[in-house]
Amino acid sequence: MELEFLGTGSGVPSKGRNLSSVALKLLNERNEIWLFDAGEGTQQQILSTTIRPRKINKIFITHLHGDHIFGLPGLLSSRSFQGGEQPLTIYGPPGIKKFVQTTLELSDSHLSYRINYVEIKQPGVVFEDDSFKVTCGLLDHRIVCYGYRIEEKPHVGALLVDKLQQYQIPNGPIWGQIKRGEVVELADGTSLDGKDFIGPSQPGRIVTILGDTRYTKESIRLAQNADVLVHESTLASNEGKMAYRHYHSTSAQAAQIAKKAQVQQLLLTHISARYVGKKFYELLNGACQIFANSYVVKDFDHFEVKFRKQE
Amino acid sequence: MELEFLGTGSGVPSKGRNLSSVALKLLNERNEIWLFDAGEGTQQQILSTTIRPRKINKIFITHLHGDHIFGLPGLLSSRSFQGGEQPLTIYGPPGIKKFVQTTLELSDSHLSYRINYVEIKQPGVVFEDDSFKVTCGLLDHRIVCYGYRIEEKPHVGALLVDKLQQYQIPNGPIWGQIKRGEVVELADGTSLDGKDFIGPSQPGRIVTILGDTRYTKESIRLAQNADVLVHESTLASNEGKMAYRHYHSTSAQAAQIAKKAQVQQLLLTHISARYVGKKFYELLNGACQIFANSYVVKDFDHFEVKFRKQE
Repeated sequence: MELEFLGTGSGVPSKGRNLSSVALKLLNERNEIWLFDAGEGTQQQILSTTIRPRKINKIFITHLHGDHIFGLPGLLSSRSFQGGEQPLTIYGPPGIKKFVQTTLELSDSHLSYRINYVEIKQPGVVFEDDSFKVTCGLLDHRIVCYGYRIEEKPHVGALLVDKLQQYQIPNGPIWGQIKRGEVVELADGTSLDGKDFIGPSQPGRIVTILGDTRYTKESIRLAQNADVLVHESTLASNEGKMAYRHYHSTSAQAAQIAKKAQVQQLLLTHISARYVGKKFYELLNGACQIFANSYVVKDFDHFEVKFRKQE
Repeated sequence: MELEFLGTGSGVPSKGRNLSSVALKLLNERNEIWLFDAGEGTQQQILSTTIRPRKINKIFITHLHGDHIFGLPGLLSSRSFQGGEQPLTIYGPPGIKKFVQTTLELSDSHLSYRINYVEIKQPGVVFEDDSFKVTCGLLDHRIVCYGYRIEEKPHVGALLVDKLQQYQIPNGPIWGQIKRGEVVELADGTSLDGKDFIGPSQPGRIVTILGDTRYTKESIRLAQNADVLVHESTLASNEGKMAYRHYHSTSAQAAQIAKKAQVQQLLLTHISARYVGKKFYELLNGACQIFANSYVVKDFDHFEVKFRKQE
């Protein structure tokens, strides 16, 4: 599980920062890549990575501002051109379907795969299967804007093979029953509880990726105990008023969210183009004072999301 | 008058070639820049040039395929963000207005300037004023696709001041009459024909920029006697069948158009990503054999369009 940032700028692109997009690479876990937002130029940024567009099978859109969605039609078209055949699901606020359909229809773009649309009207669980759950919450932005909490389900403990061999149980159906934690009676009458033969389970990892927002308690809820929180940080701490006026956050506000939610790591993105050179440190330091494990990400930065050490 | 290529690739972007867009810089002539097509990433490409988006006041769209228009909403938004206040006119096939309006509305983008739309239903003159005329013609592509012929009007010859001074005519209203080519009678009864006091006029320059197309006679008409012809050249000469099937041209076909139209210079663009390394020369040589003054353009190439030497 790895996060790779494709665009870390805000509003308009600059030479150093393209527009919002971050990939959650679940290659070992599911052989899939999930994309969060797709600002203009996302497909061009992908050319400088190892990401294959056909591996992207879910795109989560936080909100419909242009710097988060104008790269979507081109990316979808290129995914088709490059041999993508598996369906793709787009999650996002109402309107995302009309945006994609209108742009593809007017441009006479015919895709080689099906798009499923999940227009989120009500925050809550938007995806769940055996291994992952994605919950979304409403942030505080000028237009409807969501944050996503991606929770990996616990990894069930391994079967304790050595211990089973002490009981001289041959590999077969009984191992399956034990692995499922069932109580099994052997031919000699011995009763074994499956739970005794399974190692400790490994808690799943939690990644929270938020869209543009002012400081809001909903962010704390979505980020609670996360391994990684990706939070916008358009401006430095001394620009609180301007951030509020434009429905954005300062780095200090993002750090407060990280601290209150007790996350492991804070990744700051959606950085205004003004923060270059020394000004970069104004932004970074404002966060680190409050939450030490803060990073201001750059385009193409990637971060492995590790399992926590068991206590 | 200068042409600057912002994207020279076809269909999907590659590391070396972004998607279609070329700027006709008329800074000396009108203090304006006219853009032809705006594939995704055009605004990012502009960051590596001296082009100021607010100077762009006309955008001509050849056709609605995504690689020619998906950069439009972002460019329009950034032009606003960067202080553009002067109106902008978009020329293109029917549908372009709906594309721009839908993308801007759904993304809650509010521009600081007005957009005029000229949806071209009938080829012909689409713009004309005292100094320039733009004519469009219908090419042969899968969807409606236009080529544009931009004609600068002749530069009227300069007033021959030395000659006027021989007749001892003081600078004043009479100079104006003479400059307009009128016949003037002096106080002493001498009659002067204004035409005798004006130097030779300078023919205007002609630039023809075509959208995607198969070989078609209409291209010859649009390019007749042009100083520069910008023609697509998706494939090399040995791929004629594939070019035809996909409604594109080979470099040899583009060169034939250039030769028949008797243009001065041929600039080949919309190049498939396959033509790198040695294969690049397959494409180039196929054109040069037929029309020597051919160039395969790269992103950020620029070409001054010079006045022809008077014969």
